[in-house]
Amino acid sequence: MLSTMMDDQLSLATLLRYASTFVGDSTVSTWTGDGVRTMTYREVGAESARLANALTDLGIGRGDRVGTFMWNNNEHLVAYIAIPAMGSVLHALNIRLSPEQLIYVANHAEDQVVLVDGSLVPMFGQYLPQLKTVRHVIVVNGDAAAVPAVDGVTVHDYAELLAKYPDSFDFPVVDERSAAAMCYTSGTTGDPKGVVYSHRSNWLHSMQATTPSAMGLRIDDTVLGIVPMFHANAWGLPYAALMTGANVLMPDRFLQPGPLLEMMAAVKPTFAAAVPTIWGGVLAALAAQPQDITHLRAVVVGGSAAPPSMMKAFEEKHGVRVVHAWGMTETSPLGSLAHPPHGVSEEEAWTYRVTQGRFPAAVQARLVGDDGSVVPNDGKSLGELEVRGPWITGSYYSPEGVAVDPGKFDDGWLRTGDVGKITPNGYLTLVDRSKDVIKSGGEWISSVDLENAVMGHPAVAEAAVIGIPDEKWDERPLAAIVVAEGASVQPEELREFLSSRFAKWQLPEYWTFIDEVPKTSVGKFDKKRLRARHADGELDVTTVR
Amino acid sequence: MLSTMMDDQLSLATLLRYASTFVGDSTVSTWTGDGVRTMTYREVGAESARLANALTDLGIGRGDRVGTFMWNNNEHLVAYIAIPAMGSVLHALNIRLSPEQLIYVANHAEDQVVLVDGSLVPMFGQYLPQLKTVRHVIVVNGDAAAVPAVDGVTVHDYAELLAKYPDSFDFPVVDERSAAAMCYTSGTTGDPKGVVYSHRSNWLHSMQATTPSAMGLRIDDTVLGIVPMFHANAWGLPYAALMTGANVLMPDRFLQPGPLLEMMAAVKPTFAAAVPTIWGGVLAALAAQPQDITHLRAVVVGGSAAPPSMMKAFEEKHGVRVVHAWGMTETSPLGSLAHPPHGVSEEEAWTYRVTQGRFPAAVQARLVGDDGSVVPNDGKSLGELEVRGPWITGSYYSPEGVAVDPGKFDDGWLRTGDVGKITPNGYLTLVDRSKDVIKSGGEWISSVDLENAVMGHPAVAEAAVIGIPDEKWDERPLAAIVVAEGASVQPEELREFLSSRFAKWQLPEYWTFIDEVPKTSVGKFDKKRLRARHADGELDVTTVR
Repeated sequence: MLSTMMDDQLSLATLLRYASTFVGDSTVSTWTGDGVRTMTYREVGAESARLANALTDLGIGRGDRVGTFMWNNNEHLVAYIAIPAMGSVLHALNIRLSPEQLIYVANHAEDQVVLVDGSLVPMFGQYLPQLKTVRHVIVVNGDAAAVPAVDGVTVHDYAELLAKYPDSFDFPVVDERSAAAMCYTSGTTGDPKGVVYSHRSNWLHSMQATTPSAMGLRIDDTVLGIVPMFHANAWGLPYAALMTGANVLMPDRFLQPGPLLEMMAAVKPTFAAAVPTIWGGVLAALAAQPQDITHLRAVVVGGSAAPPSMMKAFEEKHGVRVVHAWGMTETSPLGSLAHPPHGVSEEEAWTYRVTQGRFPAAVQARLVGDDGSVVPNDGKSLGELEVRGPWITGSYYSPEGVAVDPGKFDDGWLRTGDVGKITPNGYLTLVDRSKDVIKSGGEWISSVDLENAVMGHPAVAEAAVIGIPDEKWDERPLAAIVVAEGASVQPEELREFLSSRFAKWQLPEYWTFIDEVPKTSVGKFDKKRLRARHADGELDVTTVR
Repeated sequence: MLSTMMDDQLSLATLLRYASTFVGDSTVSTWTGDGVRTMTYREVGAESARLANALTDLGIGRGDRVGTFMWNNNEHLVAYIAIPAMGSVLHALNIRLSPEQLIYVANHAEDQVVLVDGSLVPMFGQYLPQLKTVRHVIVVNGDAAAVPAVDGVTVHDYAELLAKYPDSFDFPVVDERSAAAMCYTSGTTGDPKGVVYSHRSNWLHSMQATTPSAMGLRIDDTVLGIVPMFHANAWGLPYAALMTGANVLMPDRFLQPGPLLEMMAAVKPTFAAAVPTIWGGVLAALAAQPQDITHLRAVVVGGSAAPPSMMKAFEEKHGVRVVHAWGMTETSPLGSLAHPPHGVSEEEAWTYRVTQGRFPAAVQARLVGDDGSVVPNDGKSLGELEVRGPWITGSYYSPEGVAVDPGKFDDGWLRTGDVGKITPNGYLTLVDRSKDVIKSGGEWISSVDLENAVMGHPAVAEAAVIGIPDEKWDERPLAAIVVAEGASVQPEELREFLSSRFAKWQLPEYWTFIDEVPKTSVGKFDKKRLRARHADGELDVTTVR
């Protein structure tokens, strides 16, 4: 039996239409270093129309990719909504990629036009000669003449270009399953992989972002959008703000704690979202120079696990609620958020708030064990987190239509590569990356839990735990210890130290002492190199049972 | 370009799965007259599975209609989610329809099974012999033997029937555009017309209901669901509660102000929704016997326009925020909600809060004038409200596939039959039904505005204003006045009284004095009869220009 409901498409043009009319008085502002420059959403609508007209004249049509190489600012918001609304595909280029990666993703996505912030022209200019499909560069708030001349590439000044076009455009109704935007994951190994969001996925994700189970955005919010617009769909904030009429404050390139606190003092945002590193810096700056930040009703922290001490400091010292969240580029990115259950004490609430949180109804989550079977959500059993839902990616982009990294997908589910446990009431705690978890006798042991625990011993400066092959148990833990300056310690003592917190079978029996834990370029433990050193027989291993 | 996102269906089974697992500790409770009986959502999940198994055994499959003839209670919530989740179609029968209408809609929908509350068996038993497609009746909490014997109809006891079946069921993933539930509009003329909600429309509407722009439902809410589950999709509350894990309190048949206040005192709900009549009764009861109701963070009032005095009394005397809302069966029903814009004074906020409110991004709204052209949203121009969106009906149900009342649809938009104006920032104020608005010289005059204004004169007890044919102006207003007991007044005085608030061309020049305004069975002004009396020359009309 068919329904009688209209088959209206969940198209991002509806958000632009709404934002620029009924909530047209709401604003986006960009920090300039000593103040803000502001546009109403009505002006965002007019400028979006001009941009769409200009891009159409440059030959951009349905499905064509338009890149942005920009900070978070007013013009980036215009591009963010105008490009999908006209039926083309937004590709927000990650300005922090390595040159090789940046060139790879722009070529892989076949970006035809790129909008570049004036302040980023020097960086972008270095890549431009190697971008094979780019035909037009549009310089936003900067010197178009500073872009190096490249055959076949025309350079435009954003303001001059847009001034030529009318402020209305017939934004089309597109099929909701068509592409709206692309984002590449920057994995540590292999080429970046492209995620292509649809109008539908971004629309649904935006609405989810506005619910109280997620961020609860509302028209009287002012959102400080710290998370870069080229990172994981900007956590859905731009579209969610347009959907609700929430105001937006954009930090542009001023991402240091000092300017962030200055813009907060000036604009008094009610909501903000960023990675733990940013919040850690803000906390330290606040300790040095106190400032009232209670205008923030909540901040969301995600991207990597936030230390509970940081979350508590925000709340106890500054009266600001911190919400821990989990997501990834492939999940749009929400994801789970750690709102505590109702009816629990403040103390018990913290046991939930430090988890990765609970998923919304639309996102199914399950844990899968080593043998491929689903592990119970008993709050103890470990498994690899797999998710599915209408805003979860089901494949990676391939211009040739071949399966990219098919091992990431399991019968309609996305394998997240994260290992964790889920309580019966749905709270996820991640304990390891799946490649680092130690698989021992059919059970999993979290390398991260062991590391964190052993680093609590005063004689230990750093520790990394890896699984090493074992004939009987498949794998067993090897703890690589960096002894603290001036201290000395024996494996027996460390094993004893861990024994109160771990079952006997979880305790490492292999120990080695090293000078330093090898690290990746971004400072994470590089366990791959540690495993290689062990395989090459470079580590001096003591066995203690 | 296609996206890489999963094509997961927005199916109501996802809500049942979520509610019965990750938020399985949340509850639905039904008032028994002196307390509550409670089920957890985990138990709702188990009972839904039993019901789905039982209905499958009774021959109910995909797309088959299952009726409910029930008050708002635990079992009705189970039926509400289990029936669509199994791929069948829920038809909540309006127990307040006339016998002819009830029999018409059950036969038109071809309901095959009906679940009936024990307390409603005497009423239902009268209709049963004329229900042509019903093969099974399931009596919930009552005496199955009290159902009259009808050939071809088997009667079951709900608890006995469900006890035979296991508490798990493989709820299917259905196409999101397939039918989930039916609701008939009970128009004053003609046969009721069927609206068929899809899984998609109910899913999207539920998510919208949970956003702060609408009801902002969250897991720590307890929703008092006064609006009957057979009225306009129960305003979306049941599915929204399951989607978020909000608790639900159901009043069953105890809808009088006294019991409503008793159950509020006992359970302390945080949110409630009902028509103005209910809230008016509650206010009067509170005046007689005060009670703290500040546990309600908000109540939504809709279904018909709420008097501003009532909304203010709730807020000023009882500290409870009232949100005015507009919707209809055909709009799922949200619709617009009158949250004031941010940054306005409390006094200015009231000028917005008494309107019908603002639409969400997904629902497009426009006003259309007499000549079919779109009227500007300038806060002054009147037009018929037309809406469109993913949870707005685009046609009425017809088993034969013929267009039912096609005049209600205008090129992809639903004609609401309401006449109003919209401010530039999107606030809708309804002024009339389109059949009652007076069309004079290409402009529209609100009959309701004139009636409300003239009824403010101390000598006027009641007044109805209708349009009467006019050669030059098409229509002109005729005011039919009921003079207050012991008073006397002349048309000249009333015209003068109105002249400060209306433009000259809006003032009635035709006046008549009558003993009583004719009324419909539900007490509304019956202007059709008044127009007929005028056409028949029964009214003694004075002309005053």
